Amino acid sequence: MSETTARRRARTGGGAARRAQRSAVSFETAQYITRNIPNFEVLTEEALEIIETNAETILEEIGVNFVNNPGALQRWRDAGADVQGERVHIPRGLARELCKTAPSSFTQHARNPERNVEIGGKSLVLAPVYGPPFVHDAKGGRRYATMEDFRNFVKLGYMSKWLHHSGGTVCEPTDVAVNKRHLDMLHAHMTLSDKPFMGSVTEPSRARDSVEMCEILFGKDFVRDHTVMTSLVNINSPMTFDDVMMGALEVYAENNQACIVSPFIVGGAMAPVSVAGTLTQVLAEVLAGVAYSQLVRKGAPVIMGAFVTSIDMNSGAPTFGTPEASQITYGAGQLARRLNLPYRSSGSFCGSKLPDAQAAYETANSLNMGLLSGVNFMLHACGWLEGGLVASYEKFVMDADQLGALHKFAAGIPMDTDAQAMDAIREVGPGGHYLGCAHTQSHFKSAFWRSDLFDYKPFETWAEEGSRDTMALASARVERLLADYQQPAMDPARAEALAGYVADKKASMPDALG
Amino acid sequence: MSETTARRRARTGGGAARRAQRSAVSFETAQYITRNIPNFEVLTEEALEIIETNAETILEEIGVNFVNNPGALQRWRDAGADVQGERVHIPRGLARELCKTAPSSFTQHARNPERNVEIGGKSLVLAPVYGPPFVHDAKGGRRYATMEDFRNFVKLGYMSKWLHHSGGTVCEPTDVAVNKRHLDMLHAHMTLSDKPFMGSVTEPSRARDSVEMCEILFGKDFVRDHTVMTSLVNINSPMTFDDVMMGALEVYAENNQACIVSPFIVGGAMAPVSVAGTLTQVLAEVLAGVAYSQLVRKGAPVIMGAFVTSIDMNSGAPTFGTPEASQITYGAGQLARRLNLPYRSSGSFCGSKLPDAQAAYETANSLNMGLLSGVNFMLHACGWLEGGLVASYEKFVMDADQLGALHKFAAGIPMDTDAQAMDAIREVGPGGHYLGCAHTQSHFKSAFWRSDLFDYKPFETWAEEGSRDTMALASARVERLLADYQQPAMDPARAEALAGYVADKKASMPDALG
Repeated sequence: MSETTARRRARTGGGAARRAQRSAVSFETAQYITRNIPNFEVLTEEALEIIETNAETILEEIGVNFVNNPGALQRWRDAGADVQGERVHIPRGLARELCKTAPSSFTQHARNPERNVEIGGKSLVLAPVYGPPFVHDAKGGRRYATMEDFRNFVKLGYMSKWLHHSGGTVCEPTDVAVNKRHLDMLHAHMTLSDKPFMGSVTEPSRARDSVEMCEILFGKDFVRDHTVMTSLVNINSPMTFDDVMMGALEVYAENNQACIVSPFIVGGAMAPVSVAGTLTQVLAEVLAGVAYSQLVRKGAPVIMGAFVTSIDMNSGAPTFGTPEASQITYGAGQLARRLNLPYRSSGSFCGSKLPDAQAAYETANSLNMGLLSGVNFMLHACGWLEGGLVASYEKFVMDADQLGALHKFAAGIPMDTDAQAMDAIREVGPGGHYLGCAHTQSHFKSAFWRSDLFDYKPFETWAEEGSRDTMALASARVERLLADYQQPAMDPARAEALAGYVADKKASMPDALG
Repeated sequence: MSETTARRRARTGGGAARRAQRSAVSFETAQYITRNIPNFEVLTEEALEIIETNAETILEEIGVNFVNNPGALQRWRDAGADVQGERVHIPRGLARELCKTAPSSFTQHARNPERNVEIGGKSLVLAPVYGPPFVHDAKGGRRYATMEDFRNFVKLGYMSKWLHHSGGTVCEPTDVAVNKRHLDMLHAHMTLSDKPFMGSVTEPSRARDSVEMCEILFGKDFVRDHTVMTSLVNINSPMTFDDVMMGALEVYAENNQACIVSPFIVGGAMAPVSVAGTLTQVLAEVLAGVAYSQLVRKGAPVIMGAFVTSIDMNSGAPTFGTPEASQITYGAGQLARRLNLPYRSSGSFCGSKLPDAQAAYETANSLNMGLLSGVNFMLHACGWLEGGLVASYEKFVMDADQLGALHKFAAGIPMDTDAQAMDAIREVGPGGHYLGCAHTQSHFKSAFWRSDLFDYKPFETWAEEGSRDTMALASARVERLLADYQQPAMDPARAEALAGYVADKKASMPDALG
């Protein structure tokens, strides 16, 4: 439904919203993951201390740049930093001290309270791909993303049992003017899904629009007291904090909304070509960014981000699912826990142009490291293709299926008497088989995770059905999901007000292209 | 070269072998992995103790069957077990005590000493797929494996930088009589590769043939004092030790050759439908099997195996790369270390019919758990397809490429001054870039692992080159490798003697079909 139609319907009594409410079915969404497993830690205590000492040296001696942002420089001066031009030298220990007021964990509220997520501690919240200007599907190949694609991905995310979060820019709707896009995107998240979502960061004014739309959706009082958005604030690595991203962070922090403060690093280009050096720079950047969020508002919820990967020195292309990316992700998790901050990293990262074996190896490597490194918020958990240039329909459902396996693994190993299964072993005995025994019969439905997508059939059946590969199976699944989609119910007055806000706001602006 | 040709050439002066020696080139093989990372441990001390206590209960109360093997029953009686018919009840603690004479680590020698591998401790040795009756390639699809396929896979294994071991039955050469196959297979490993290999286990007599061929290859004295084969002895789970497998184990243990004693379990069919129950049965079976190897010969080298996966309760098919398989693999690693035994598990496991995304997700999950669970010997590390029914040419090189990433990750994170890269961070500063800095220039070649197979090119280049997926890239690589293959040099007299042994042995036997 286009925003024009939505507005017209809203003005004629909210019929569409009421119809949606009547026909709404609820799709099952798993609770966010609570890890009952340890984290995998690669760095020794000594290594961690070296990195922490060096990060403080960067902050004090080299400093970081806050660009085009006199307000930020003043805040740093007031906090005791040595500001030279736009360069902020932060005395050893100050940034870490400032970070202490950030909460170690916070709740992000969804309009459906059952979909609220806890970010921090032992939790893992999964959100879809963010940012691609292109989409890819089996039938249409690779093409620029549109608002229709955006809505489709929001629908797929809403229908995925294993995604806890609707995400943000699931793809760039390039057919909508760049200064109006955020309104349509937020409107889609708010109306097509009832999961939590992210706000706009591409202009401070768009962050303010995001807050205002949330005030309509949740109520003004509720937004003042609760976190209802988690938004992505990238650092211009190395060590540069630009006014656009920091402006968005300031809006969100002032409104008690959450930000991911995230170095954006292709190792070898935006950080040293070594794991230890990259981790040091990541930590320095996060310390400066998170400390700044606390200068804006003490206690503002914030996540330590680390988008870090390696580079192919032959082609200059970023590479994904590599051993160095894993080492950095594990190491950054340890650093985040020592800062007592929620941690964002990992995702369905791959460099492949197709959702093929390369894509899946790289993605599985990334998802496994994400699970074991203690990530609390996993952006890009499904649908990422071609180094993030492309949101893939097929890969979205392929990855989302794998996220189910993360849930099961993270639950840990039950050790109660029933799980010990000694009665079953006694019943079956040497040479027997377990398929028919009482223990198996009472547990077979839930005992083992199974993919809802992969082919487990015998070769002959699979061949008779057309010898389909995973991409073909995923393509059929995408089609079925989009056909089955039903909008979650929303209070008609609220739906009307939201549509009205978007229409009015868009009418007040000329189209901008960049 | 058929064995008839080999024999003819051998009798006419070993010309083929001499030519091979003259033209031989050496392909680079990485040293087996020595882990400089911790193991990931999912079970608590309390959980481990429950499993160990229950496993002893199985051995004492339920017992295990040694079938058609009066000699084994006598050995158990002599050791103090309570033998009822073919059922052996092992008093609590006895099996664990007997296991103590097995070495915690041993060297398997290769005919090229540079290819020797250490199995146990922090090492990880990678060997290819074992056992498939079918092969698959992009051009010919799925078909019964032949001896030509077998030789091709040995060649691919020899040429892989990341495989340390030539393996055993890389596929079943179904065009050779079943009673003669082992001779051709061993001959291929011995002559087409110089990496260590596995012996035959399908009849005790074939294990003896394997030892005799090794005596020709290495010399009789050398074989008496050194381990030159590691062979796969599966247990008929639940808790059944058949005479064929135990007969092979007896031959190998008597000759101081290594065996993997391996429960073969699809959870829910051959073990309880729970992770804790399956781990308990795995431990009981391994305790009985390894203890038996030590009754045959104290100090015989032996590996704790665990081939364990889950079942799809809808279709009854085994499933791979699942969270339960990972939990079992991590848990079994902990149990192996408490037994002080080398550990075999994991591999390029998948259920897919094609080397597609399903295959790669499942395989990457399996390889990651293998690396982090402390596996010392990874059979099936590349080439496995369709639940092990198929050896895939393309997947062999795809998986083998990924094994390179395991090497890099396992090396750990360098923390020396150069790796800390503080000079690079000072040199570049905020807003700069690292591509041209001195530190990057001196490290860019080796800093980051890169795939030799995957596509890292820009979309446009990739599209111009035919938009190839990973299977197409792998197909081209297989073709190139087989065209480039060159046989490693071998002493002509030894080559002649080996060929003669095979020819004489085959001439002495009628063809058997099963």
